[in-house]
Amino acid sequence: MVLKLYASNLSPPSRYVGVILHEKKVPFELVHIEFSKNEQKSPANLANQPFGQVPYIEDDGFVLYESRAIARYIATKYANQGTKLIPTEDMKQRALFDQATFSESANFNDYAFQLYAEVFIKKAYGQIPDQAKVDELKTTLGSKMDVHEQILTKQKYIAGNELTLVDLAYVPLATALSDLGVDVREGRPYVTKWLNELINRESWQAIKSKGLVSTA
Amino acid sequence: MVLKLYASNLSPPSRYVGVILHEKKVPFELVHIEFSKNEQKSPANLANQPFGQVPYIEDDGFVLYESRAIARYIATKYANQGTKLIPTEDMKQRALFDQATFSESANFNDYAFQLYAEVFIKKAYGQIPDQAKVDELKTTLGSKMDVHEQILTKQKYIAGNELTLVDLAYVPLATALSDLGVDVREGRPYVTKWLNELINRESWQAIKSKGLVSTA
Repeated sequence: MVLKLYASNLSPPSRYVGVILHEKKVPFELVHIEFSKNEQKSPANLANQPFGQVPYIEDDGFVLYESRAIARYIATKYANQGTKLIPTEDMKQRALFDQATFSESANFNDYAFQLYAEVFIKKAYGQIPDQAKVDELKTTLGSKMDVHEQILTKQKYIAGNELTLVDLAYVPLATALSDLGVDVREGRPYVTKWLNELINRESWQAIKSKGLVSTA
Repeated sequence: MVLKLYASNLSPPSRYVGVILHEKKVPFELVHIEFSKNEQKSPANLANQPFGQVPYIEDDGFVLYESRAIARYIATKYANQGTKLIPTEDMKQRALFDQATFSESANFNDYAFQLYAEVFIKKAYGQIPDQAKVDELKTTLGSKMDVHEQILTKQKYIAGNELTLVDLAYVPLATALSDLGVDVREGRPYVTKWLNELINRESWQAIKSKGLVSTA
């Protein structure tokens, strides 16, 4: 049975899972969850994702949520097809991959998502963003991106010299913020080179141009 | 060479790594990082942890940061001693462990840490907590803990029926918040039973009574 992805195009983590499915050449059926109808909180969805969030997947009856967990599951199950994206052997390489994964969450996503929510989601609901909060988040995110710049002077990708799942996790939010006028690349040549390479990959270009659509 | 833990007793993630080292019976040398002297931002520390955070470890020259990455590294390296704490074989079990790990971070830690920072850290620096922010965080954290309650009616631990690293990740912040008058156990019998079992483990009792101290 084809893998089902329960997701929304408005959700950067949903787009991230879409990118990973593309990179791993795994066909999927998209089940679109409509935020404006609060569908993520429907009884059927809550039975699969008790926190009422997207994305989640259903793979032959196995239900899994949290985008980073889904990405790891897909990369492990389909280790032998598509882009590798996950270190499988060396314990230290794996530890540095974990380090990068949790650092992306704490030192990028936490601030980038709050900024996205404050600017994009508030506007979508006709509310006015809190400018002081926006400015504070921009400053903090900027200082975190300065550290990313420094890391990328020493290695090609965020977990070392190989592309992994973690690099691709940055793309949906970084591009969404760029569309809103907050470009984490500005003034950071190493971040620019790294992020542009990821953005130009076929996987992101597909999601960017067509949005999340079934591929099965 | 003995493992070195660079950490502060004031940091819940530092205490989490202490718990894991105890559970895995791994002796360590504590290098205390003094927040009041801003030691985490010293050039020596920034060379090892570019974001200027604690904890990080140095294990025979291998440097690793992010508490959850450190916990996984320790549990993997010392798989054959102490408590198991990490699923190693079944792909689906591992995926549910990943799901729980990222959910703990997003659906507990993000709110619990902000609450801890707003109440404890602001007070420590002689600032006044923002009561509206405190109330909002308490409400959100409460609703997330209601979902935890529901999950724990169906399984014994947060990633399934076996104790894992993820369960122990809740303890340092949950107990710190409890000391500040925000007890996530209140009105939640399943969360209470689960958390009390974890709190009563020898590993947490050791950290609680003596603080982080060298064991090597």
